[in-house]
Amino acid sequence: MEIIKGGVTAAKGFEAASTAAGIKYTDRTDMAMIYSQVPCEAAGTFTTNVVKAAPVKWDRQVVDSGKKVQAVIVNSGIANACTGAEGFGYCKDTADAAAEALGIDAEGVLIGSTGVIGKQMPMDKLTAGIQVLAGKKNDSLENGTEAAKAIMTTDTCEKELAVTIEAGGKTVTIGGMAKGSGMIHPNMCTMLAFITTDAVITKEALQKALSEDIKDTYNMISVDGDTSTNDTVLLLANGMAENEVISYGTAAYEDFKTALHTINEYLAKKIAGDGEGATALFEAKVVGAESVEQARVLAKAIVCSNLTKAAIAGHDANWGRILCAMGYSGAQFDPEKVDLFFESKAGRIQIASDGTAVDYSEEEATKILSEAEVTAVADVKAGTFTATAWGCDLTHGYIDINADYRS
Amino acid sequence: MEIIKGGVTAAKGFEAASTAAGIKYTDRTDMAMIYSQVPCEAAGTFTTNVVKAAPVKWDRQVVDSGKKVQAVIVNSGIANACTGAEGFGYCKDTADAAAEALGIDAEGVLIGSTGVIGKQMPMDKLTAGIQVLAGKKNDSLENGTEAAKAIMTTDTCEKELAVTIEAGGKTVTIGGMAKGSGMIHPNMCTMLAFITTDAVITKEALQKALSEDIKDTYNMISVDGDTSTNDTVLLLANGMAENEVISYGTAAYEDFKTALHTINEYLAKKIAGDGEGATALFEAKVVGAESVEQARVLAKAIVCSNLTKAAIAGHDANWGRILCAMGYSGAQFDPEKVDLFFESKAGRIQIASDGTAVDYSEEEATKILSEAEVTAVADVKAGTFTATAWGCDLTHGYIDINADYRS
Repeated sequence: MEIIKGGVTAAKGFEAASTAAGIKYTDRTDMAMIYSQVPCEAAGTFTTNVVKAAPVKWDRQVVDSGKKVQAVIVNSGIANACTGAEGFGYCKDTADAAAEALGIDAEGVLIGSTGVIGKQMPMDKLTAGIQVLAGKKNDSLENGTEAAKAIMTTDTCEKELAVTIEAGGKTVTIGGMAKGSGMIHPNMCTMLAFITTDAVITKEALQKALSEDIKDTYNMISVDGDTSTNDTVLLLANGMAENEVISYGTAAYEDFKTALHTINEYLAKKIAGDGEGATALFEAKVVGAESVEQARVLAKAIVCSNLTKAAIAGHDANWGRILCAMGYSGAQFDPEKVDLFFESKAGRIQIASDGTAVDYSEEEATKILSEAEVTAVADVKAGTFTATAWGCDLTHGYIDINADYRS
Repeated sequence: MEIIKGGVTAAKGFEAASTAAGIKYTDRTDMAMIYSQVPCEAAGTFTTNVVKAAPVKWDRQVVDSGKKVQAVIVNSGIANACTGAEGFGYCKDTADAAAEALGIDAEGVLIGSTGVIGKQMPMDKLTAGIQVLAGKKNDSLENGTEAAKAIMTTDTCEKELAVTIEAGGKTVTIGGMAKGSGMIHPNMCTMLAFITTDAVITKEALQKALSEDIKDTYNMISVDGDTSTNDTVLLLANGMAENEVISYGTAAYEDFKTALHTINEYLAKKIAGDGEGATALFEAKVVGAESVEQARVLAKAIVCSNLTKAAIAGHDANWGRILCAMGYSGAQFDPEKVDLFFESKAGRIQIASDGTAVDYSEEEATKILSEAEVTAVADVKAGTFTATAWGCDLTHGYIDINADYRS
């Protein structure tokens, strides 16, 4: 596997475009299109929130239909959630407009929306935007990057990655883009991520690879504990790499999944580290667990604890909050066996042994916790399973952004 | 029922004292004693965190033993959590020191601790403090109030209340004190609350009244989603009112429980409204629920949502975040039936009807949300059950306090 430049347009036959449609933002791009020159197999995972945004309902329907898809229309600024039948109608209107502009089937158009909940879509702006996108789309890496920028809300940087693997004598490319950065506590998948590949792969293998991998990637990040109404990961495969078909359970499938995991983990970590107001990526690694489920629950509880996150913001080795968070996670473990460590590129330090403090240097710990990426390692000494979760520190910036997000 | 002045010393035969023992704080009182002139029946509810502080383990043992208790020793500054066998040993030492100073049985001494996790107790300071407390204790209301001040950590004000009821021709008094204000997300009971009564009541009735009532009071508040290692509510009854014994299931029991509820709800709301950095008490009322459990889960999810709490800090009627929080709460409901309202002493306004926005005035909504106590009402239109939860807004103050709490 090789990491290459680019994002959603890295794989053969995928094009992208972005435009400033003025949906909510007035000074930046806010619409993106992903287009495949040929129809794709599509896989998707969606929010588990009972309150599902209209585009989530639309996409679920499209993905479940088993039909091939050819385009994705994404807007930032308005989430099209809590918008009732009117909001769902706008999804159909969007698909119709895209289908007409691109000369494709409306049932092959997927939709992603992110932004404020409860507002209806300005359809005239969306329709006009689609016309522009259809005219601008091309397969350049720049257009892929510009699309990744257009889907941002409070993100501070675009998030994209592409990799290649060899599959049956052919080079297969996978590329993706994602956006955060608030209401991030995915429980099925993250806010919005779009991954494209030119692999020839069965729809079953495509969906399984995605569904299995999100458990260790998007579902292991948290910015604020709020599971969004719009969480969506879409994975499109157009087959233009002309490799031998990848089926579930084969060696080629494992290679594909490993490459997909690289993309997903990278994008998930980027979302966590670019959480609203964040100054640090906070990683929690649980080792020595009885089961992978126990490890995941414990790791996620650590990155979700407001108190721990505020301590990380203050570079404060307040390890008791970590043990406390593990304690209320719902997972059973013996607190009197837990060893705790902090690590970053500034070093590694043991803080607790068998659940109580060791004699460590606060100065050294603060130095380690002052890096832009810091890790807490908890060894529960109960088995051999591990899991990693990613979050960020909780800062004044989060309050600034969210005390008046809609203005 | 009548609300009267005072707190833990309001009921007959209860004394209190406070002192500055220098356990962590150097400029304020940090130890309190509650003492009953005669032995008491005791009821307790404790944290559900797997990581339990040493005093929680100690108190559980004392309460479960069925023996009568006569004193409570409380310290702020150090939580005596994650302190292993050494920490538990300090509980025994504390009880022994109190027993000797007061001439009572060590098995009748309860302990409460709150503060930083992972540090061992300076036993010499604690022992010296107990001597001072034993010499200073008396039944004045002032001493009760001073005790309520001594147990504070980041609280900005002491929290106490007392009420009287008539029971079998006698006046029975119940008084209590509590402290918050971080790591507040009780799951069994809140950080620390101590309630005293001179009622004659069976131990069974005492425990049941407490266990039933915390579900609607302490367990319905959240400051930051972090369930503490130390959460403890203790209820002591010394029988000095000489009323006819109150047994479970009688009319007198219901009267007692109503009075206890008044104390518990008042203290719980005070803790929520005095949450770290809070500028507003945020109340969430769910009505029209299918069951009380559904109502509780939904109400608590609303007050726990960081995004909603940040919006409340900004007086921003960002109602979509409320519906989003209800959606990921785990409770099932029909989002397209939900009506949402905001209310405060500045008025009441409907924001959403059947899950989508109504045409409301943002200016009016902001006015309503600018009060010191604001309420969100969600009608899920599925039944007749209701529940109320209390939290606070999420502000810069929370970050200031928690980014460097230990310094």
